[in-house]
Amino acid sequence: MIVPAEFLRRIAAAAAQETLPRFRSQGTVSNKLAAGFDPVTEADQEAERVIRELIRAEYPGHGIIGEEHGSEGAASRHQWVIDPIDGTRAFISGIPVWGTLVGLTVDGDAVAGLMSQPFTGELYYATGAGARYEGPGGERALTTRKTQSLSEAILFTTTPALFKGDMRARYDRLEAQVRLARYGTDCYAFAMVAAGQVDVVVDPGLQSYDIVGLAPIIEQAGGVVTRFDGGPVEQGGDVIAAATPELHAAAREILFG
Amino acid sequence: MIVPAEFLRRIAAAAAQETLPRFRSQGTVSNKLAAGFDPVTEADQEAERVIRELIRAEYPGHGIIGEEHGSEGAASRHQWVIDPIDGTRAFISGIPVWGTLVGLTVDGDAVAGLMSQPFTGELYYATGAGARYEGPGGERALTTRKTQSLSEAILFTTTPALFKGDMRARYDRLEAQVRLARYGTDCYAFAMVAAGQVDVVVDPGLQSYDIVGLAPIIEQAGGVVTRFDGGPVEQGGDVIAAATPELHAAAREILFG
Repeated sequence: MIVPAEFLRRIAAAAAQETLPRFRSQGTVSNKLAAGFDPVTEADQEAERVIRELIRAEYPGHGIIGEEHGSEGAASRHQWVIDPIDGTRAFISGIPVWGTLVGLTVDGDAVAGLMSQPFTGELYYATGAGARYEGPGGERALTTRKTQSLSEAILFTTTPALFKGDMRARYDRLEAQVRLARYGTDCYAFAMVAAGQVDVVVDPGLQSYDIVGLAPIIEQAGGVVTRFDGGPVEQGGDVIAAATPELHAAAREILFG
Repeated sequence: MIVPAEFLRRIAAAAAQETLPRFRSQGTVSNKLAAGFDPVTEADQEAERVIRELIRAEYPGHGIIGEEHGSEGAASRHQWVIDPIDGTRAFISGIPVWGTLVGLTVDGDAVAGLMSQPFTGELYYATGAGARYEGPGGERALTTRKTQSLSEAILFTTTPALFKGDMRARYDRLEAQVRLARYGTDCYAFAMVAAGQVDVVVDPGLQSYDIVGLAPIIEQAGGVVTRFDGGPVEQGGDVIAAATPELHAAAREILFG
């Protein structure tokens, strides 16, 4: 199934109307989890609401799964997966590396997706027939970099602290082998793999909605996205995205070999 | 001394003409330090060149110190301090949290400064008569948040790995007390303190040019910037910036008490 770019643009524009006016404002922030810090802003909730309305109107038979408002139409072969604001911590800190993520699975496979960063005016998307960028600097196809060796690779992860026990030692070995490692940019780092700027992103414990919108963009730009164990990411889990199959194999060997 | 906002805008615009076309392009990247990774792009070198030209034309008697092209006019009471691209690692990774930093010291005190992020179109600056923002969402005065307690604070640092030995244990104690800690945003996190989005930034081992452009913006927005030992930051060192004097004291007590 091909999703028209025009529909993805409409989703991004509608979500931006809910998120952008609340970015860097004193919006309502509540704690979703009493233990820890997982803010949910009005922006999150309202953006998901308007995205659901657009999907229901355009694809009335499809199912929808969202971070904020649960699941509907679970029996459909087509499931839209929404994370209205991936990177809520960046959002509340004023850093424009959060994004609105929307993905489509057909029979469980992620086939199309969108990452929108409305403050920078960037759109990264995959229609099922290719991956594209629209934003400052113009419009272009997305292609991953051809990096094959870890020693030439730029690596991103949210924070090494998410790797526990033996996994932390494995992550540290991976980090020691790359050219450059950076932390903390959420969905934006995955988009940079698709854009040919970053070579490897590893993030443990992702939810389905954290990755279903992003995986098709990276894959249709030439990259590889799997769980650490090599399995599919559509149900979430420990996720590794890489610019090339060779680099993916080299990083996965360290994390899971 | 007051520096006209118009002059700071001209500096930002001239630097952007050198940096922005090379951002996310396949620019020349060389290694400044053989051991480690400290890229210098053409963007860095060319941006400093055009900034120097503007300063020489506007303030011919003043001294200039730059990361790329060294020092001139060292005897002047007025010294301009330039970091054409703070956050070169973010720059080469495609993440728009790098910035062009320019500061002015008079008799050794930082009195005016500028942080420009041209991809997002943001300008954070201090003229000596106040701190202001110009960019998406309009134009406004910058004011720090009124956070006084660490338990309510958002903390940023480049990476905990920069803290060595006992300092790492102290940093970890600080991180354990705050509401939220994030890594890896270079000058952008300091700008967010001035903008009232982030409460504390700690970064060890900064150079003069990393902080002279930023300190006046935070101070003229109501914040406090010192070394961990409480001394002035104009010569660089281990730097802590905080939204309020109370928060600054609380964080500094942990890092240096």
